[in-house]
Amino acid sequence: MRWARFELNGTPTYGVVEGDTIIPVRGSPFTAWERTMTKLPMDGVKLLVPVVPPTFYACGMNYAEHVREVAEKVGQKPNLPTQPDIGYRANNALIAHGEPIVIPKDATEQVQYEGELVAVIGQKCKNLTRDNALSAILGYTIGNDVSERSWQKSDRTMWRAKNTDTFKPMGPWIETELDLERLVTKIRLNHRQLIEFHTNEMVFGVVDYLVQMTRYLTLYPGDVVWMGTEGATQNMQHGDTVEVDINAIGTLRNPVVRER
Amino acid sequence: MRWARFELNGTPTYGVVEGDTIIPVRGSPFTAWERTMTKLPMDGVKLLVPVVPPTFYACGMNYAEHVREVAEKVGQKPNLPTQPDIGYRANNALIAHGEPIVIPKDATEQVQYEGELVAVIGQKCKNLTRDNALSAILGYTIGNDVSERSWQKSDRTMWRAKNTDTFKPMGPWIETELDLERLVTKIRLNHRQLIEFHTNEMVFGVVDYLVQMTRYLTLYPGDVVWMGTEGATQNMQHGDTVEVDINAIGTLRNPVVRER
Repeated sequence: MRWARFELNGTPTYGVVEGDTIIPVRGSPFTAWERTMTKLPMDGVKLLVPVVPPTFYACGMNYAEHVREVAEKVGQKPNLPTQPDIGYRANNALIAHGEPIVIPKDATEQVQYEGELVAVIGQKCKNLTRDNALSAILGYTIGNDVSERSWQKSDRTMWRAKNTDTFKPMGPWIETELDLERLVTKIRLNHRQLIEFHTNEMVFGVVDYLVQMTRYLTLYPGDVVWMGTEGATQNMQHGDTVEVDINAIGTLRNPVVRER
Repeated sequence: MRWARFELNGTPTYGVVEGDTIIPVRGSPFTAWERTMTKLPMDGVKLLVPVVPPTFYACGMNYAEHVREVAEKVGQKPNLPTQPDIGYRANNALIAHGEPIVIPKDATEQVQYEGELVAVIGQKCKNLTRDNALSAILGYTIGNDVSERSWQKSDRTMWRAKNTDTFKPMGPWIETELDLERLVTKIRLNHRQLIEFHTNEMVFGVVDYLVQMTRYLTLYPGDVVWMGTEGATQNMQHGDTVEVDINAIGTLRNPVVRER
């Protein structure tokens, strides 16, 4: 099942995506819901970020090759995580599928994509076990963890390197049925494929993170956990289009513009 | 003016605190509001956190002596910030005035308070200037940035060190009228005063942070910015009561219990 969030008469509304159409519901997948009798063509609706999370979690370094690549870029030693310590991103930076990533005037050329699987929490939970952790997840969407590498190197925190407005594209929708082991992530810049990796070959997987996190914290419906990216990343420029594709979910596509 | 958020017939409601009474309003201080004709005794209401922020910002290291103290505790060199790089905390950890701070079973004895001024954003804003930055603030409340120092030292991020459930007491209410220069923060453990400092003697002040942050990000109504703490901090134990007092705002008081 595919849940999209979109604008209906100016109001954020959840709908079920079926082929090229979307069926608005009353309620939301996080509470109770029922289908309406309406059916709209997908290409006529404005998609919104599929959820605005109460807390926005991100794993950061979670793929071996990426850890080495970023360490080199920001001038640190590669340091493979030894335990699943979660990090954070910020809601101000979220944009939907199709909306532009805006590079600030004073950013360097080193503004780079990071294509990620995103787990969307479906229910309030604490003390998850390895057996029941995945049942806390409503579904999965896609994130692009846009990063300005010079700020990531110079600043004490990753606030503007990772959380400048528009630096967190998320979407296009939430897919509830998929097999983690069969996912492949592909990243394309201007339709040219740059990298392809097995999505689930993480240092610590979804279950590892959820079990460890919920030993100490409560997860709430709508919380998101961005699972990290693999490989080298390249600069994006004004006029580019960046796509993150995960089979079984879809494609998150955003144009890139530089602020004048 | 003092804004409290409290439970009225099971529903979170804003009210204006006047002496020992509270006047519920329709609406909220972040949108439109009007007083109701009701007046309730303060000691009969259950206070809630004064706001659940869309994004939860925290300055972290922002007072000279505290930077030195924490560096020693977590085994790093003291490193006074050279620019106002903001950090993040998480909503799951928020508790109200009066609610218990719960120390997890496996935490060390090093669970410590940090008493902080909290700026509450009143309106959507970007590109604030030194002249208009303070006008974006609805008012101020108090935060206790509870921290487990062994995790702060061992983990790659501060997720459980700072964001374990109940580790972020905030309240008791939002005060809209105050003079930053005249504020004094006092921290008491079991009614014994441990530290007193001029609240506004920060490395980077409220205006510095808001101007720098809004060069890159949009602030939204209800966002909070925790301004950091001064001095050495001590361990809290099961049965303790911790109080953070800022004149002109009030006292944030929380009992401490250890999970069995």
